[in-house]
Amino acid sequence: MPATPDMIPIWREGPAAKLVDQRRLPEEWVELDIHTAGEMADAIRSLAIRGAPAIGIAGAYGFWLAARQLLESDIDPMEATWAIPSGMNLRILLAEAAHGLRLTRPTAVNLAWALERMHARAEALIGQDAPPYEIVAALEREADAIAAEDLAMCRAMGAHGATLIAAGETVLTHCNAGGLATGGYGTALGVIRAAHGRGLGIHVFVDETRPVGQGARLTTYELDAAGIPFTLITDSMAASLMAQGRVQRVITGADRIAANGDAVNKIGTYGLAVLANFHGIPFHIAAPSSTVDLSLASGAEIPIETRDADEVTGIWPGQAFYGRVPVHNPAFDLIPHQLITSFITEQGILEPPYEGRLAEHIRQPVPAH
Amino acid sequence: MPATPDMIPIWREGPAAKLVDQRRLPEEWVELDIHTAGEMADAIRSLAIRGAPAIGIAGAYGFWLAARQLLESDIDPMEATWAIPSGMNLRILLAEAAHGLRLTRPTAVNLAWALERMHARAEALIGQDAPPYEIVAALEREADAIAAEDLAMCRAMGAHGATLIAAGETVLTHCNAGGLATGGYGTALGVIRAAHGRGLGIHVFVDETRPVGQGARLTTYELDAAGIPFTLITDSMAASLMAQGRVQRVITGADRIAANGDAVNKIGTYGLAVLANFHGIPFHIAAPSSTVDLSLASGAEIPIETRDADEVTGIWPGQAFYGRVPVHNPAFDLIPHQLITSFITEQGILEPPYEGRLAEHIRQPVPAH
Repeated sequence: MPATPDMIPIWREGPAAKLVDQRRLPEEWVELDIHTAGEMADAIRSLAIRGAPAIGIAGAYGFWLAARQLLESDIDPMEATWAIPSGMNLRILLAEAAHGLRLTRPTAVNLAWALERMHARAEALIGQDAPPYEIVAALEREADAIAAEDLAMCRAMGAHGATLIAAGETVLTHCNAGGLATGGYGTALGVIRAAHGRGLGIHVFVDETRPVGQGARLTTYELDAAGIPFTLITDSMAASLMAQGRVQRVITGADRIAANGDAVNKIGTYGLAVLANFHGIPFHIAAPSSTVDLSLASGAEIPIETRDADEVTGIWPGQAFYGRVPVHNPAFDLIPHQLITSFITEQGILEPPYEGRLAEHIRQPVPAH
Repeated sequence: MPATPDMIPIWREGPAAKLVDQRRLPEEWVELDIHTAGEMADAIRSLAIRGAPAIGIAGAYGFWLAARQLLESDIDPMEATWAIPSGMNLRILLAEAAHGLRLTRPTAVNLAWALERMHARAEALIGQDAPPYEIVAALEREADAIAAEDLAMCRAMGAHGATLIAAGETVLTHCNAGGLATGGYGTALGVIRAAHGRGLGIHVFVDETRPVGQGARLTTYELDAAGIPFTLITDSMAASLMAQGRVQRVITGADRIAANGDAVNKIGTYGLAVLANFHGIPFHIAAPSSTVDLSLASGAEIPIETRDADEVTGIWPGQAFYGRVPVHNPAFDLIPHQLITSFITEQGILEPPYEGRLAEHIRQPVPAH
């Protein structure tokens, strides 16, 4: 399907997951058919699909595909039995599939969260001796539900977050926390969409977000498609815009939030939070409850992924020279809770103190099946 | 000539100025022959030569070439007369040449400073009715002197600045304030060279410096050639390195410094200064006295050059899309004097307060001819 207004980046189509290859945007909208958990792992690792909530959804579909691959393929699926190599068992194979998908990217907790939810669903049905086709069908519904719930959470975040924004504000965002990073609509960009939809006449400054350029390539693409006025800048330009009084608010997403409110997000977000603090500009994080990891007391425990040097050097001609250049390429950084003015979640707005209150804030009914 | 250890980017060779085409580095060392003031203006505008002190030198050679172009070309230069179109005069033509060179880049004051010095030299000799060949020869010596003095000032800055650095420190720098930006050796990189030369065992973090990549392309090239250990990062990574205690000092150059100590430097420098301040890390600016503009009371009066959008979008595939993307591309930003721990000049180290004291600090003997 072509890009929807919500910019949904991943969905199911019959026996396959479909996803938009985000490495090809904004040049072209290319859809990939994903038939196996291995293909899904490659897509996550290579950033064909990215964004904390979106890779949670990708993990869920990957787990469903892993179960589906274990069905005997040459008979009516409704009658199928498991095709399991001798010496193995279903529980171990599914646990291995979840493990393989989880290892693709370590920082965003949504991936681990979705895989745990899928795995728990499978375990419950295996414990009930459910027939194979029922288990696969239930996992299909569970993955669809994770995707649909994420879109619904983004819409709720948008509605809550838009209440923070005054008419005529200029909002700065980093990376892509848009529809393409979620089940659709977006977290930080969801708030921006909602504010624009209310006719607030906002303007957006978009950090290009080196090294991978999610801001330059994806956020600009979404804002252009939505008709929201914006200006692209390099990451290094945000500070002087703040000094000139040209930024009224910073809103980003997050890849993981610890129990005390410390958050990890795309590299460069920490610097923005310090700069916003210095200039007295509110700094908000918009993220669904699936991004909160209550098992971690503080952000210091969140693993920060390091990626290939070529992401940094690949844009500059002279690859023979760059072969010998030492490069530091962490994909994320840590924003201490003291720098976060408020969290925008599907439950509402949460202001400090976060310790203890974040756990209560995100407590919500277990999704119905 | 091949790259010298001092990385001299511009020099005179007989009747031409030679310069290293910095757009081609680090891929290849390509030298350009510049025969006219117009060619020099193009080289400055297109960033073949860049860096505040270096474009001062380029302006000086450009002015010399402008005078040289006015000599009758078909007779012995020692006997030559001026070839001046009817209705024009020498003074106007030289003033126009200086004006054209000065317009190429508005922010760095070194260009205007060097052109004023060259123009004053020409005016004095014209006032004395000096023969044409004497005027051209004097301008050649003046431009050579500007280049040689700049190299000497960089060496002095290095010696002064190195006294600030403790053994084992990691220094962060932005853009290229190296030999390639000066008459050789460098301002900020001159300090780093001198500290390395004293065996202090320093390490350098190099901001890539989007959009043009002077850090990624030129500073890495110079540090690699000098055998100084370094690591390349994107501009957005500096903040988290500071938070982790991995940066002990920030040193940059400057393009213009106002009388109160406000400085303008490559876009991104202001953000670094705020971040250094937040983390309690010293932030120094290394610049020769030719960068100080005592005619401006504060930095608010310094013009900030805006450059083409393509510098920002050109690295991302999808140029049809980017054709409709609004881009903000200021080449410089303003660092208020309150954020500057000290200035490193050829005269020594100057700590706050700067108001009034900066003028006194840079007072020096007029260079001898």
